[in-house]
Amino acid sequence: MELNKNNFLIDQNFQLNQQATDLNTNYSNKQIKKKLKKVRRELSEIQNTLYAHAKYSVLVCFQGMDSSGKDSLIREVFKDFNIRGVVAHSFKKPSLKELQHDFLWRHYKALPGRGKFGVFNRSHYENVLISQVHPSIVLNENLPTVQSIDDLTPDFWEQRINQINNFEKHIAFNGMIVLKFFLNISKEEQRQRLLRRLEKPNKNWKFAPEDIKERKLWNKYIEVYDEVMKKSSFPHAPWYCVPSDNKHLSRLIVAEIILETMKSYTDIKNPPVTDEVKKNLKDYIEGLQPS
Amino acid sequence: MELNKNNFLIDQNFQLNQQATDLNTNYSNKQIKKKLKKVRRELSEIQNTLYAHAKYSVLVCFQGMDSSGKDSLIREVFKDFNIRGVVAHSFKKPSLKELQHDFLWRHYKALPGRGKFGVFNRSHYENVLISQVHPSIVLNENLPTVQSIDDLTPDFWEQRINQINNFEKHIAFNGMIVLKFFLNISKEEQRQRLLRRLEKPNKNWKFAPEDIKERKLWNKYIEVYDEVMKKSSFPHAPWYCVPSDNKHLSRLIVAEIILETMKSYTDIKNPPVTDEVKKNLKDYIEGLQPS
Repeated sequence: MELNKNNFLIDQNFQLNQQATDLNTNYSNKQIKKKLKKVRRELSEIQNTLYAHAKYSVLVCFQGMDSSGKDSLIREVFKDFNIRGVVAHSFKKPSLKELQHDFLWRHYKALPGRGKFGVFNRSHYENVLISQVHPSIVLNENLPTVQSIDDLTPDFWEQRINQINNFEKHIAFNGMIVLKFFLNISKEEQRQRLLRRLEKPNKNWKFAPEDIKERKLWNKYIEVYDEVMKKSSFPHAPWYCVPSDNKHLSRLIVAEIILETMKSYTDIKNPPVTDEVKKNLKDYIEGLQPS
Repeated sequence: MELNKNNFLIDQNFQLNQQATDLNTNYSNKQIKKKLKKVRRELSEIQNTLYAHAKYSVLVCFQGMDSSGKDSLIREVFKDFNIRGVVAHSFKKPSLKELQHDFLWRHYKALPGRGKFGVFNRSHYENVLISQVHPSIVLNENLPTVQSIDDLTPDFWEQRINQINNFEKHIAFNGMIVLKFFLNISKEEQRQRLLRRLEKPNKNWKFAPEDIKERKLWNKYIEVYDEVMKKSSFPHAPWYCVPSDNKHLSRLIVAEIILETMKSYTDIKNPPVTDEVKKNLKDYIEGLQPS
């Protein structure tokens, strides 16, 4: 399967409610899984080179509705990674300590160092997604300029998206490769997945009553996602919208987009051997012969 | 003494090599010290209110040539502070771990939480000050875009100053009061202070041979400070240039500018008493009488 990552790229003309949540590929799930295996092996080699090169870091952000498959996708896509060079963060409700800082602080702290991958399961975007759907969340931030949700004007959200854009521009300019994925499932697919969580006893723990409440706000979420992603997709930090009703397929698409992106950085290489090592290679080898 | 903080404000027309390094005030040092005592007592009350209010935080940055008096100024100005609500950071050479992140990362992490003061002794500005005077420092950052100091074009520094400006705009918008001070000493005053460090045995430890080397770059530093401060002084994050040949006077000026700034935030108050406490105040008091 040859996927062109630009087919999934979000640009100015993007409309989330017009996007496919599945793709017709003529491939069986078995074939898709086999392809994923190959891609992730390639990815893990690139991870090694990234680590040795130690100039770039990579930030991969995942967003999506409840049950869109973020957790299992992260598990499968990064399965062959050396844990030494990757760190994943799940961003849930901020702690009291985190709320004492600006909304980007906990994400900034969690950024991967040079040579490493960072994976954000939900991300700094929640501050303009769930926060825009449930504005009262922003009151927890204790902003001096926000006394009530009436202060959360369109201008406030516009500025907040700009703050996120500036943040990403800054880290990109300083050597971070930034990729953002929206896992796009249909409302019907979510219904079935939630139902499965309720019907299978060993999946019950995954269900939260809030999921049902949030599901009622489906259209609002789609609207907010659409606006936010359109305003924050740039060549240095693109958003991709990934059809995710078929979990196997969505994993493969994400893995291929990461791989294609990494391959475009042709400067990522093992560091050169020093002249000293080159010159004395023979001597080193000789010195290590059994005596 | 009535100081107008705007007299020290750095604006577009600022020229560092034209600035006074001392002021004629008609006050003796004893009188100045007495005034400082009063100002810092007021400041410490405001610190308490800031803490109770817990919406704003305050970031105070100090820059200046070697021996300009940053350390002792910080000691004297914040002497009456409750240590619970203030945290000071001295930024020296970045560690290997810090170098694995973008240059703002270690400063971002160190920002004060809501209700607190943060004091930066040297700051994120070193990345466009000392780094611009000694460009090879930037090579330690391992930026993928910088292979040699030839890549450090005027555009690179321009962008870096913009990154700092965006960072400060972001934290200011999210409730941080930002103040930046340059302690301005004359080259002659530095000469005397360095000499004293060498002549008094109990001050020898403060002397570093690099100080002499850096002193030779005095004019280059003045030029770079001038440009950087002009480009990064804004109403939400102003730079002040403080005459510092007289240490007592410079401390007073800084303390007064901080005080005047804090007083301009008339919304910083103790949080209101809840209706429940108000209504039942008498009952609470009664319940606490000795039985």
